[in-house]
Amino acid sequence: MKDRKIGIVGLGRMGGNMARCLKDKGYQISVVHDVRPDVATSLAEEIGATAATALAEVTALSDVILTVVTDDAAMDAIFHGEDNLFSGAEGRLFINCATLTPEVHRKLERDAAAVGAECLEACMASSIPQARNGELFLMIGGKQEVFDATRPLLDHLSKALHYVGAAGKASEVKALVNMVMNINTAALAEGLGIGDALGLDLKMLCEVFSHTGANSRVLETDAEDMINRDHECYFSAAHAAKDSGIAIGLAKEQGIEAPVAEATLRQFTRLTEMGGGELDKSGVAELTFRGRALS
Amino acid sequence: MKDRKIGIVGLGRMGGNMARCLKDKGYQISVVHDVRPDVATSLAEEIGATAATALAEVTALSDVILTVVTDDAAMDAIFHGEDNLFSGAEGRLFINCATLTPEVHRKLERDAAAVGAECLEACMASSIPQARNGELFLMIGGKQEVFDATRPLLDHLSKALHYVGAAGKASEVKALVNMVMNINTAALAEGLGIGDALGLDLKMLCEVFSHTGANSRVLETDAEDMINRDHECYFSAAHAAKDSGIAIGLAKEQGIEAPVAEATLRQFTRLTEMGGGELDKSGVAELTFRGRALS
Repeated sequence: MKDRKIGIVGLGRMGGNMARCLKDKGYQISVVHDVRPDVATSLAEEIGATAATALAEVTALSDVILTVVTDDAAMDAIFHGEDNLFSGAEGRLFINCATLTPEVHRKLERDAAAVGAECLEACMASSIPQARNGELFLMIGGKQEVFDATRPLLDHLSKALHYVGAAGKASEVKALVNMVMNINTAALAEGLGIGDALGLDLKMLCEVFSHTGANSRVLETDAEDMINRDHECYFSAAHAAKDSGIAIGLAKEQGIEAPVAEATLRQFTRLTEMGGGELDKSGVAELTFRGRALS
Repeated sequence: MKDRKIGIVGLGRMGGNMARCLKDKGYQISVVHDVRPDVATSLAEEIGATAATALAEVTALSDVILTVVTDDAAMDAIFHGEDNLFSGAEGRLFINCATLTPEVHRKLERDAAAVGAECLEACMASSIPQARNGELFLMIGGKQEVFDATRPLLDHLSKALHYVGAAGKASEVKALVNMVMNINTAALAEGLGIGDALGLDLKMLCEVFSHTGANSRVLETDAEDMINRDHECYFSAAHAAKDSGIAIGLAKEQGIEAPVAEATLRQFTRLTEMGGGELDKSGVAELTFRGRALS
């Protein structure tokens, strides 16, 4: 797919680094766009692309458009706002990377078809370094034939690629991944917070956790940050709240109870309301260590 | 310590297998005891020990006594009942392996001192096969010099041994280990239960979990059992409820909030009240998969 012009919309730490990655691998990044024009201009200069000021310009200058925005509302704005990506979109392929409510992906596929375009959802279960190095874990939803045709590009972005099913299915998986991750994170924060209050050696406690049924991926990635209050953001508390909320919404639609996910959502929501939404998810430990509370 | 006579009280799957393990390694198991006399008789025959009918008999026939009972109440019964292990206990060493409220261990150390005996708490973060093979993960609380003197025996029971601090400290660590494990277990049950209701391929979902921030030890040990409803007991739901309750009690004493642990405790308590207390902790999935509820 290196003969096709690529546009990227949403140049946060994920989108910006996916652009750099594809550029390094020999793709033509023709155009980039962000709601912050200076971010778009800066990246455009770095990688030799055009910084579009209008979304319709992205569509005009690209064959394949990756969207890497934050949430349902941002997605609605870029596809259904006055200036939008569907303008003149016939023959275009949109690869949508945000973690969204599954129904948004299903509707987007229908809306794209109405203007003669195709869509894939490409949910990412990885973070910034993986985006930069083309080592994302990607879950793809959409039509099988569109996935097959797009596979070379997706392979260059990822080290693991799962075709999950129809549009919306990848978002369902992604929401559950993040729901479980968020619970495990909140669990770790409670364990370390109580241990700290009891005067336990937290390094010893983490080592014990690692050898027992308390072990988890978030123990590896977040425990030290929780202890050191280093909440530099890889995956924000606000995103954690959003994704747990999506998963709980799915549970409710299906009549499944998820009280532990709900208690976790309340923690991340509380942290966000206290002003900690842009902290990394490890910031939930600010609620469980004595005398912190973001002080 | 192979010259010392060993007694074992509490011959459930852990205690019974620790007895077999020590026997295999050349220790003299002189006497065993259980509230179920037939269980004691059967094990005594198997390993060539005396089956004591009275606890005082265990003390009379042993130098070192391992207690492997279930909870605070059982511990109180064997040490403070009419017939009890403190009768004639001068010079004896008690190694107490149950996960108890930390204060119980502190009081036990004081009470033992009053009759001229010593105590160690030896909390186990492992399960039945590890007990049988002398590969337990042990956390020890008590006096450092008592630990040092007992180390050869403890090494034969374990593959990892941590001296954690004064009496009660090992129970604190253990309660936190199990609290975090229980939350991660309940999280997994919610993720799989919602995924099942959405019609996702649960094998695929588990594989995705394993490659992402949702990965955990309980994903390895419990996911398949949750999917297959195979709740043969390694660590019971009732024990999960007990240990989460101990941890939450510690949190409350310290003024630390642990709402996710509390939501998890409610799940394991509910499962126990529904009659599922003797299911493995994986049985919590019975509450989160559509149409199950122990049916």
